[in-house]
Amino acid sequence: MPVVIQNISRADPKVVGALAGYGVATIHEAQERTGLLLPYINPIFKGRRISGSAVTVSVAPADNWMIHVALEWCKEGDILVVAPTSPSDAGYFGELLATSAASRGVQGLVIDAGCRDVAELEAMGFPVWSKCISATGTVKETLGSVNVPIVCAGQIVQPGDVIVADDDGVVVVPRLSAAKVLDASSVREDKEAISRARYQAGELGLDFHNMRERLLREGLIYIDKPASE
Amino acid sequence: MPVVIQNISRADPKVVGALAGYGVATIHEAQERTGLLLPYINPIFKGRRISGSAVTVSVAPADNWMIHVALEWCKEGDILVVAPTSPSDAGYFGELLATSAASRGVQGLVIDAGCRDVAELEAMGFPVWSKCISATGTVKETLGSVNVPIVCAGQIVQPGDVIVADDDGVVVVPRLSAAKVLDASSVREDKEAISRARYQAGELGLDFHNMRERLLREGLIYIDKPASE
Amino acid sequence: MPVVIQNISRADPKVVGALAGYGVATIHEAQERTGLLLPYINPIFKGRRISGSAVTVSVAPADNWMIHVALEWCKEGDILVVAPTSPSDAGYFGELLATSAASRGVQGLVIDAGCRDVAELEAMGFPVWSKCISATGTVKETLGSVNVPIVCAGQIVQPGDVIVADDDGVVVVPRLSAAKVLDASSVREDKEAISRARYQAGELGLDFHNMRERLLREGLIYIDKPASE
Amino acid sequence: MPVVIQNISRADPKVVGALAGYGVATIHEAQERTGLLLPYINPIFKGRRISGSAVTVSVAPADNWMIHVALEWCKEGDILVVAPTSPSDAGYFGELLATSAASRGVQGLVIDAGCRDVAELEAMGFPVWSKCISATGTVKETLGSVNVPIVCAGQIVQPGDVIVADDDGVVVVPRLSAAKVLDASSVREDKEAISRARYQAGELGLDFHNMRERLLREGLIYIDKPASE
Amino acid sequence: MPVVIQNISRADPKVVGALAGYGVATIHEAQERTGLLLPYINPIFKGRRISGSAVTVSVAPADNWMIHVALEWCKEGDILVVAPTSPSDAGYFGELLATSAASRGVQGLVIDAGCRDVAELEAMGFPVWSKCISATGTVKETLGSVNVPIVCAGQIVQPGDVIVADDDGVVVVPRLSAAKVLDASSVREDKEAISRARYQAGELGLDFHNMRERLLREGLIYIDKPASE
Amino acid sequence: MPVVIQNISRADPKVVGALAGYGVATIHEAQERTGLLLPYINPIFKGRRISGSAVTVSVAPADNWMIHVALEWCKEGDILVVAPTSPSDAGYFGELLATSAASRGVQGLVIDAGCRDVAELEAMGFPVWSKCISATGTVKETLGSVNVPIVCAGQIVQPGDVIVADDDGVVVVPRLSAAKVLDASSVREDKEAISRARYQAGELGLDFHNMRERLLREGLIYIDKPASE
Repeated sequence: MPVVIQNISRADPKVVGALAGYGVATIHEAQERTGLLLPYINPIFKGRRISGSAVTVSVAPADNWMIHVALEWCKEGDILVVAPTSPSDAGYFGELLATSAASRGVQGLVIDAGCRDVAELEAMGFPVWSKCISATGTVKETLGSVNVPIVCAGQIVQPGDVIVADDDGVVVVPRLSAAKVLDASSVREDKEAISRARYQAGELGLDFHNMRERLLREGLIYIDKPASE
Repeated sequence: MPVVIQNISRADPKVVGALAGYGVATIHEAQERTGLLLPYINPIFKGRRISGSAVTVSVAPADNWMIHVALEWCKEGDILVVAPTSPSDAGYFGELLATSAASRGVQGLVIDAGCRDVAELEAMGFPVWSKCISATGTVKETLGSVNVPIVCAGQIVQPGDVIVADDDGVVVVPRLSAAKVLDASSVREDKEAISRARYQAGELGLDFHNMRERLLREGLIYIDKPASE
Repeated sequence: MPVVIQNISRADPKVVGALAGYGVATIHEAQERTGLLLPYINPIFKGRRISGSAVTVSVAPADNWMIHVALEWCKEGDILVVAPTSPSDAGYFGELLATSAASRGVQGLVIDAGCRDVAELEAMGFPVWSKCISATGTVKETLGSVNVPIVCAGQIVQPGDVIVADDDGVVVVPRLSAAKVLDASSVREDKEAISRARYQAGELGLDFHNMRERLLREGLIYIDKPASE
Repeated sequence: MPVVIQNISRADPKVVGALAGYGVATIHEAQERTGLLLPYINPIFKGRRISGSAVTVSVAPADNWMIHVALEWCKEGDILVVAPTSPSDAGYFGELLATSAASRGVQGLVIDAGCRDVAELEAMGFPVWSKCISATGTVKETLGSVNVPIVCAGQIVQPGDVIVADDDGVVVVPRLSAAKVLDASSVREDKEAISRARYQAGELGLDFHNMRERLLREGLIYIDKPASE
Repeated sequence: MPVVIQNISRADPKVVGALAGYGVATIHEAQERTGLLLPYINPIFKGRRISGSAVTVSVAPADNWMIHVALEWCKEGDILVVAPTSPSDAGYFGELLATSAASRGVQGLVIDAGCRDVAELEAMGFPVWSKCISATGTVKETLGSVNVPIVCAGQIVQPGDVIVADDDGVVVVPRLSAAKVLDASSVREDKEAISRARYQAGELGLDFHNMRERLLREGLIYIDKPASE
Repeated sequence: MPVVIQNISRADPKVVGALAGYGVATIHEAQERTGLLLPYINPIFKGRRISGSAVTVSVAPADNWMIHVALEWCKEGDILVVAPTSPSDAGYFGELLATSAASRGVQGLVIDAGCRDVAELEAMGFPVWSKCISATGTVKETLGSVNVPIVCAGQIVQPGDVIVADDDGVVVVPRLSAAKVLDASSVREDKEAISRARYQAGELGLDFHNMRERLLREGLIYIDKPASE
C-alpha cells in the first residue's frame, strides 16, 4: 500500500526554528536521552546546524523515485528524512535533487543510505547527513511512501517531527513535545553557562558539583604515588 | 612469477585529461554503472578531482617494495593503483614516496590499504584515496608485480585503464572505452544542465520527467491527511 | 579497588615537548614499530600535533565520572588518555569538560570511546582523538581509576608515558625510553631529509637505496610489453 | 515516562501457532517483503523455528532490570523482544533469566544486544536470536518500559505483533495482519511446492516461468564460446 | 552488454575431483598464496569440502535472474560462483534454486552476497559459502552475464577455474594451473605427513626445522625467569 | 628486544583446574567484571570449556615463528595466548601446530588473529578461540617474544595468568587472584543455584529479589491496557 500523505501537521515554526539554537547533544539530554540517530549517520561537510519539520520518505532499496514524489509536499524549512526498506549504500541523492529541494525551500537531508556529488553539495551549501558517500546510482522502479512513520538509523521518525542535525549527529524531537523540549534545552543551556564560567575560572567539577563526599562514600582511594617508585 | 611490465598502452591523453571534467558519479552512470570502487575508499583530503592512466601495483601484505619499482615506469600524469594480495591496513605510502612520485609526474595514488603522513600529503597537494589512515610501516622483503591486472576495492584494474577520482570515490574506465565514456559523460552532463535549470526554476521532476501517470498506474495513493488528525 | 594515584612521574618536559617536532609515523618507526594505537582512533579535526604526559583514566562503560576526578591531578601540558572497561560508543567528553581541562593546562584527549560537541571543541582549539563522535550522554554512577595502567585502542598506556598524536593517529612512548626515542626520531628525520632531497631531484629509491641487484636476485622479471599487444 | 502495559491484545493463538509452519523467508515474501529484522540478528544455536506474540521491552544500555519486570506479563507461548535505547553489546540474558522465562511459558527471546550462557541455553533448548554473544554483565539501575512500541534491529515492533524466527533470521508480522499473512504464506508455499516438483524433475525455471522471451527482449546475447578459444 | 557464454573450457575432471582431497589452506599454499577469497565468505554449515569448475554469474544488486539463466549451462559437478555488480546482502538463493541446481548436478554455490532457507539447504546437503544469511528476497528485472570473468570476494574468477571450498573458506585455482597445483598440493601434503608424525612424537619444530641457530643469529634472547620474581 | 622467558610462575594447578568448573560469565562476574576479552573472539567449535595457565606469545603481523619457539616452554595444561603487534587476519595456527601443541600437553589456543584447518582441529578436539577463520598463511621471518605481557583482544595478559574459555568467550584471571576468584565463583554459583530453583518453581525475580518497591520508588507506572483499545 504505497501512499502519500499530502498534508501533515508541523510544530510551531518559531519553536522549530528556535531549536537550532541548541546543539544535538543538548537537545538529546533535554528530552531524557531519547531520539538520537545511530552515530553512523554523519554530515557530509562540517559546520552546519539545522532544525526543521520532517517530511519522511520510505524508499525501496537503491530506488529514489519517492524522493521526487516527496518534494511536491515539502514546505519552506522542511527536512527530508529518507530510509530504505532494506539496507542500502547506494547514492540516492545528488546535486540535481538538491537543486530541486533547495528551490522548494528544503533545508537539508537525513538519509539512512548514501549520497553523492558531495563536493557540489558543499559548494551549494546544501547539508546532508548520510550513512556513506557513494556514487552508485539508483533507479525509479518501485513505489514507496511519503509521510508515513519510518525507522531511520534506529529511531522512529513520524512526519512532522522536528529534526535537529549538526556535527554531533541527528536527533528527532516528537512534534508534540517540541515546545517542552525547547524549554528544557534552554534551562539546560543556562545551567551549562554557569558551569562553563566556573570551569573557565579553573574551578573543578568535583568541587562545585560536590562530588568529593560521594566519591569517598563509594570507596575511592587516593594514593600519593605508585608503589614501585 | 613476479613481473614488471615496463611499457603499457595508455588511452589518448586528451581523452584522459578531459574525463577530469566530469565527476565520478557522472562517469559511473555514463558507463552503465560499472567500474566503481567500493565506497570504503576515501580521499585523505577533500576538494580534488584527478584523471590519469593506471600504473597497477600488486604488493605483498605490509610490503611496499614494489611501489618503488613501479615509480620507474610511471609517466607524467599517471595514477598509481596499489592492491595487496591479502587485506592490509598498513601505511604503505607517505610523504617520501609522494615526493618521489610527484617528481616523476604521478598525479595521485589509489590504494586498497592505508597511507600515512596525511598532513604532509595535503600540504604537498598530493591526493590519495585509501582504505584507511595508518602510521603502521611496511617492509621491503617480498616481490610483487607491476602493470598486471589487479583487483582493487572490488574492481579489476588493468594497467592503462583510466582512473577518475574525486570526493565521491574512484571509478575505473577501461582504456579502450575511454573515448566512448567521455562522449557519454558529455551527453549526460548536457542533459543534466537542462534538468538543473528546470529544477532551479522550481519545476518538479515529477512534471518534466512525466512521472505522474506511471505513479498512478503503479498504484500510488494520495491521501490528504493522516486518519488520526 | 578504584584508586587515584595522585602523583606520577613524568618524562623530562624538554623531551616531551621536543617529541611534537616529529610525526606519529616517524616516532612509531623510531621505536621499532611499537606503541601505535589502532587506526580506528581519529582526530575530530585535522591539523594538530601534540605531545604530552599521559594521565590515564579507566572508566566504566558510559560513565564519565572519573574524568572529573582525573582533572585534579593533571598538570600543564598533560594529555588525558581514557579507556572504558568494556567497549562503549557513548559521548564521554564535550565542551564543558574541555573548558575545565583547558583551564588546567591539559593539551588534549585520547579516548577509546566517543566525544561530542565537536564543533565547539574545534572552535576552542581543543584536540580530541576518539573512536567516534556521539551525542549519547554518560552518567556519574560508577567509580574507576586514575593513573593506573590501561589498555587504550590495543596498547598498554602507563601513567606518565608520553603520548604523541597527529593526523596519522596516536603513539605511546614509554616514559623511560622517551629520550632515546627522541634521539632515534631525530636520526631518522635526518636520514629522511636526505632521501627527500634526492627524491625531489627525481632520483629513484631503486637507485640510491641500491635495490636493483636484490630485486633481480629475488627473481623479479622485467618484460617490455604485455604479450597481447 | 517508564511504563508497563500489563495487558495487550494478541493475535488468534491458532494463527500465531500456524505461522511457525512457514519459514521466515516465506513469511517475509508473503507480507510484501516487510518486517525483516536486520541480518546481524542470529540464532545462538541452529535448528529451531518459533512463532509467538511479542512482549516488547525497552531497556537502558547494559541494564536488564526491565526484563524481570516484563516476565510478569508474559503468557504461555509469548516471545520476548528486547531493544536497548542506545546500542549495547552487553550480555543481558543468560541461563537464570531463561529458566524464569521458560517456567512462565515464554518460548524464546529476540534481543538487539548480547546474551550469555549460550551452552546452557542450548542444553535447555531455550532459543535466542541476538546481536552477539557476550559474557559482559548488566545492572538493574534504570527503568525502561514494557509493551510499548520499540525499534529492534531496524524494525518497529508493537506489543502483540507476531514474531517468527528461524535459522534465516526474524520477521515481525503486525498483529492485525497475522491471519492474512498466514493465508498468503500458505498460497505461496503451495506455489513453491509445484515449482519444487518441477525443479526436482530437472525442468528449468527459464522454461516453466517463461523467462526466455523476456530475456531476449531485454537484450541478452548468447555466445557459443569465448572469443579466445 | 549482458552476455551468456554457453560453453566453457573446464579442467580435466580427474584433476578437478582430486583437488577435493586437499584442504583450502593446503591448496592456497601450493599455489603460492594466491586465489583465496576474503574470509567474510563462510559456509552456511560445516563439514563439507567440494571442488568443481566455476560457472560464473554476474548479477545486478538484489536480482537473481541470471542464476536461473546460468543453470542451463551448468554440467555435472560444476560450482556456481555469483557476484553482484555492487555490494548486496540480499538472499539471492534458497531451497528452490538449490533443488534446481542439484537436479542438474551442481555441487554447491559460492556467493558474494546472502542466501536463505539455510536449514533446508543443510537438510538437502547442498553446501553454500556466502557473505551472510538473509531472508531478503530478490527480483528478476535486470540482466547480467554468465561465464564472464567476475570479482568475487576480492578474487578474479574466470569461468572454468577450479573452486575448492571447505570450512576454512574458498580458493580459486586457475584452470590452466590446476594440474600443477594438484601436484604441488600432493608434495606439500607428503611433507606435512612427515612433520605431523614428528610433531605427534613430541619433537619440536624448532629442532627438526633447524630454527635454533637462525633464532640466535637474529638476536633472540633467552632468560630464565622474569626479573621481578 | 625479542626475548623468551623460559620459566614462569603458574597458579596452583588445583585452582587452575577448578576454575573450569565455572563458566566465563560467572568468573567475569566473580572478579568484578574485569578481564573479559572482546566478544569478537569466538570458539571455532562449540561445547568446550578449558582453564589453564597462559603462555603468552607476541608475534609480528602474519608471522607465526614465535609460536614454534613458545611450544618449548609450555607445560601440561597450559593455554597459548597469542597476539600480533599490529592487527592481522592471517591464519597463524593450523592442524600441524595443534599436533605439536597437543603432544606437549597444551590444552588450547586463544589468538587475536586467524586460525585454519578448523575441520581438522575439531576432529582432533583441539579448541581454539580466534578472531577469524582464515586460510592465509604466515611466514617465519621476524622475531617476537614469549612470556612477556601482551594485549590480547583488549585485555592485558601476563604470563602465568589463568585463562578460562568457553562458548561465551574468554576471561583472564590474574595469577595472584586465582584462588580468590575461584572462591568468589563458588559463592556466586551457590547463590545462583538458589535463584535457579526458585525461577524453576515459577517465582518471579521481582518477588524474591524484592524489586517491586524500588521500581515504584523510581517511578515505574503500571497501566492496564494501551489507551487505544
